[in-house]
Amino acid sequence: MNNFSIHILGSGSALPTIKKRPSAQLIKFYGRVFLIDCGEGTQVQLRKQKVSFLKIHHIFISHLHGDHYFGLIGLLSSMHLLGRTKDLHLFCPKPLKDIIDVQLKASHSSFKYNIVYHFLESKQSEIILDEKNLEVYTIPLKHGIYANGFIFKEKPRNRKMKPDKIKFYEIPHYAIPAIKEGGSFITKEGKEIPNDKLTFSQEPSRSYGYCSDTAYREKIIPIIKQVTLLYHEATFLEAERAIAKKTFHSTVIDAANIAKKAEANKLLIGHFSARYLESDYPTFLEEGTSIYNNIEIASEGDVFEL
Amino acid sequence: MNNFSIHILGSGSALPTIKKRPSAQLIKFYGRVFLIDCGEGTQVQLRKQKVSFLKIHHIFISHLHGDHYFGLIGLLSSMHLLGRTKDLHLFCPKPLKDIIDVQLKASHSSFKYNIVYHFLESKQSEIILDEKNLEVYTIPLKHGIYANGFIFKEKPRNRKMKPDKIKFYEIPHYAIPAIKEGGSFITKEGKEIPNDKLTFSQEPSRSYGYCSDTAYREKIIPIIKQVTLLYHEATFLEAERAIAKKTFHSTVIDAANIAKKAEANKLLIGHFSARYLESDYPTFLEEGTSIYNNIEIASEGDVFEL
Repeated sequence: MNNFSIHILGSGSALPTIKKRPSAQLIKFYGRVFLIDCGEGTQVQLRKQKVSFLKIHHIFISHLHGDHYFGLIGLLSSMHLLGRTKDLHLFCPKPLKDIIDVQLKASHSSFKYNIVYHFLESKQSEIILDEKNLEVYTIPLKHGIYANGFIFKEKPRNRKMKPDKIKFYEIPHYAIPAIKEGGSFITKEGKEIPNDKLTFSQEPSRSYGYCSDTAYREKIIPIIKQVTLLYHEATFLEAERAIAKKTFHSTVIDAANIAKKAEANKLLIGHFSARYLESDYPTFLEEGTSIYNNIEIASEGDVFEL
Repeated sequence: MNNFSIHILGSGSALPTIKKRPSAQLIKFYGRVFLIDCGEGTQVQLRKQKVSFLKIHHIFISHLHGDHYFGLIGLLSSMHLLGRTKDLHLFCPKPLKDIIDVQLKASHSSFKYNIVYHFLESKQSEIILDEKNLEVYTIPLKHGIYANGFIFKEKPRNRKMKPDKIKFYEIPHYAIPAIKEGGSFITKEGKEIPNDKLTFSQEPSRSYGYCSDTAYREKIIPIIKQVTLLYHEATFLEAERAIAKKTFHSTVIDAANIAKKAEANKLLIGHFSARYLESDYPTFLEEGTSIYNNIEIASEGDVFEL
């Protein structure tokens, strides 16, 4: 099914390199386009993936370390130059508004469209977006400054009718929606037919969890329980555990432990410190898979379909 | 001579594309490294050209439209992460300090090094840097907001002694510096030897002028008179003259007229609007060379030696 996909725009950490760009990911969900984080250079990464800037209607910023938002002002400016008029929803820590405003003031300009700010301030997980078939919740993280991850949860999908049963039990058209939602059916003769005789179960609902940046934090496990795909930062290898602790980051073993305990279906890792080279990647996988076996490394241009 | 060179990091205009990055140029002058403007993505462009971020000690920001400075905060942050401790001199319009400060405040951080701000406020050309063999002056531009170009002028170089004359006239060691600066020499016999008999003239001093962004402005001509290499923005072709006027930008004919009237040795053009494709470049050259014949188009990665 190609209606829920994750697109890696930037998978690096604080220091941009030629290959690794700072954090940014695109979520496509049934034609809607969401951006999580917006490190410097995200605009160009979007162009490389041929994503129209104007299709992005919701942007989620995890925290205000520069490698997660320095590309935002440029993207917002480009949306303006490209003639955007539709509202843009921005979920972010409060000071981001001041950062945007002071730059607009300096250039004596304003955007042609409206930014609808949704300030994140709670230290508890909260629902921040509730749409027809999607819910987005925050995942409060443990970092040097206030930070949230985000989990995108497909709402439970309706069951699917068994076509032959419609005819067999003479089920009228108007009764079908209630059955799809799990109800039974009473026949003309007054007999109750249980739902599982009338419907197939649908695929389970899918979900995507994004956790960056954070120290190891078990408190997030109930929020991401049985997530389909979990992105969890893995800034360091085990040898640098002391630095990870000091900087409120995770090692790959931390990330793997979270994925294991949350019973995630798959773990995606990234945000490696710039000190590591590509030749260190096997070590990331080796350390991680000692705990949890379904791990992949996120790279610029990767697309993951759920 | 390879001790005065211009390195194009970004030659595009407001909308970044895959090929064209926003404005940024590096000036290397006898081992010193200066950055002019710092559009989004400048860090990565510097890495591509293998320039150490820590070697840049002076940054000049022409004006506060985003395509000329959105990459600065990321570069400054990276300098901090890379352990910079040396002062950084920043020549810029005053509001840039607020923009930097509000972002540092949001991340609860400060840099390990000191930014020495040199605020540009004058509407007249002024000298802003005076070093051993280099002077930098502002070039007040005409744009939607307060903007300056910059001219880097090598100071007049000393004349070179003719070695055989030192012996012939028995010129003592201590008298040489004054002669190199243009003085005559009095022999033991009391005879005055004019300077041109004692010295060779050196190559003429070189200069580099950067003018972006600006409408056509003849007032800048005396400031850039006989400049060795002039970069002048040429955002539009003649067909878009009305848009150029409205947005305080130049057409390539404007740029060529300035170069001609200033008697520049060579003209470099860039900052083309994103509406133009590479297939339009010959038209830029065609229109420009109808006025002035030594024009080159600046492209990312280009190096111009003076």
